[in-house]
Amino acid sequence: METIENEFQRKVEVCYSPALFPVYYSSKNCVVVVIDVFRATSAICTAFQNGVKSIIPVASVDEAKEYQSKGYIAAAERHGEIVEGFDMGNSPFSYMNPELKGKEVVLTTTNGTKAIERAKAADKVIVGSFLNLDAVCNYLIAQNKNVILLCAGWKDRYNLEDSLFAGAVVHRLMKREEYTGLADSSLAAEHLYRIAKGDLNEFLRSSSHRNRLARLNLEKDIRYCLQENTMDLVPIFQGNALVLANQYA
Amino acid sequence: METIENEFQRKVEVCYSPALFPVYYSSKNCVVVVIDVFRATSAICTAFQNGVKSIIPVASVDEAKEYQSKGYIAAAERHGEIVEGFDMGNSPFSYMNPELKGKEVVLTTTNGTKAIERAKAADKVIVGSFLNLDAVCNYLIAQNKNVILLCAGWKDRYNLEDSLFAGAVVHRLMKREEYTGLADSSLAAEHLYRIAKGDLNEFLRSSSHRNRLARLNLEKDIRYCLQENTMDLVPIFQGNALVLANQYA
Repeated sequence: METIENEFQRKVEVCYSPALFPVYYSSKNCVVVVIDVFRATSAICTAFQNGVKSIIPVASVDEAKEYQSKGYIAAAERHGEIVEGFDMGNSPFSYMNPELKGKEVVLTTTNGTKAIERAKAADKVIVGSFLNLDAVCNYLIAQNKNVILLCAGWKDRYNLEDSLFAGAVVHRLMKREEYTGLADSSLAAEHLYRIAKGDLNEFLRSSSHRNRLARLNLEKDIRYCLQENTMDLVPIFQGNALVLANQYA
Repeated sequence: METIENEFQRKVEVCYSPALFPVYYSSKNCVVVVIDVFRATSAICTAFQNGVKSIIPVASVDEAKEYQSKGYIAAAERHGEIVEGFDMGNSPFSYMNPELKGKEVVLTTTNGTKAIERAKAADKVIVGSFLNLDAVCNYLIAQNKNVILLCAGWKDRYNLEDSLFAGAVVHRLMKREEYTGLADSSLAAEHLYRIAKGDLNEFLRSSSHRNRLARLNLEKDIRYCLQENTMDLVPIFQGNALVLANQYA
C-alpha cells in the first residue's frame, strides 16, 4: 500500500509575542494571522466593514505624523489612548464614520501595527479578530500553507485575549484533516478557548489588558471586540497597505 | 484611614521562552525559577536528592568537553539523546548512581542549561520540577520578591509540560495574599494546570516533546518526571554552579 507522502501536512503554531516571531518563522511559505483583539485588529476589520479602502500600518507615531502632514487621514494609539494631535486611535467605533468611505487611513498602535511590521516577510499576512473569525478560518483553509497565529500581546508580553482568539482559530482548524501538525502552543490556546468560549468577557475579567481598558472607560469597546463573526471579510497586507483580500473584495 | 502603600505586592509572571526573558526581566530583585520538566530540571533535582554536591551548567557541548578533559564528570544531551563521548545525558535515572555522591557534575542540555545561562543576571535563580514542586513554592513564599517562572521550552518555542509546571506553581501561590499581581501568562498557565492536574500524563498525550521522548523509548522517564513532590529540596545557582539552597542543605 502506498502512503500519501506528498500530501502537505499543514502546521499550525501560535506565536505568543512579536519578539518570538523569528523563532517561529522558518519559511516564507506560510500565512501569518496578526492578532490584536483589544483593539487594533478589531478596529481594522471594522474600518473595512465600513468602506475604508486601505490602511497603511506604520510602526511609529513620527511616521504617522509625516503622513498626516502630507494630508493623509491618520490614527495613532499608545498605551490605550489616542495620541495628542490625532483624531482617532484604535477604538473600532471611530472607524464607523461615513466620511472614511473609500479613503486611505494611516494607523499606528502600541502593539498591533508593530506585529504587522514583524510579519511582513511572510508570503501572506492577514488580520484576525473575533469579528471576522470564520472568514479568517475559511481563508486559511483555502490556502495550502502552514499557519502562524501571531499574537500582538502587550509590549512583547503574553496576553490572554489574543491567545483566546488564536485558540478559537485552532479549535476550528483542528476539525479538518489538513491540519495535523498542532504545536504545543496551539494545543494550549485551544484548551483555553474551550474553557472561555461560553463567556469570553467573563473569562477575561481578571486579565490585565481588559482591566486596563475598563479603567479607561472602554467597556463598550471590549464588548464590541468580543463578538464573533459580525463580518465576512479578511484584511490582507499588500505592498505597503492592508486591503480587502480578493475573495472578499 | 491609611492605606498600606509600603506592602510589597509580589508579581508572578510566566515567561514561555528563554528568548523572551529580556522582556520579563526588569530588575535583579526577583527569583527566577528555571523549568525544564522533560528532563533537565527533573534530572538536576534527582542528582541532588542522590547526594551530588554541585552541578556546573554550561551552554555548549564544547565547554562540557573541556571540563571533561580536566577530569570532571560531565553530562551532555542534545535533541533528547546522550551526546557521543559522554556517559550521561539528562535522564534522571542516570543520576541515581551512588558513585556520584559528593561529586561535582558538569551538565549541558538542549534547553535547560541555556535557560539557566539566560537567567544568571537575577538575584536568585532556582531550579523547579514537579518532583520538588512544594519545596519551590515554599522557597518563593519565604522570599519577598517578584517571581519569574522561566520555561525552557523547546528551542525557544512554547511547550506544554513546562507551562503546566508553571501553572502548578501559580495555582499554589495565588492562594496567598502576597501574590496579587498575576500576569496574563500566569492566569493562562494556571487554567491549563487545573484542566490537567487530574492526570498530567494523559493531558500531555498529544504534546510534541512527550511524543519525541516516547519515540526514544523514554516512557519511564516521562512517568518519573511527572510525579509531584517526591523530594524536599531546592537547587540554587551560586557562583558558577547549582548547589542546594541553604534551608534545604
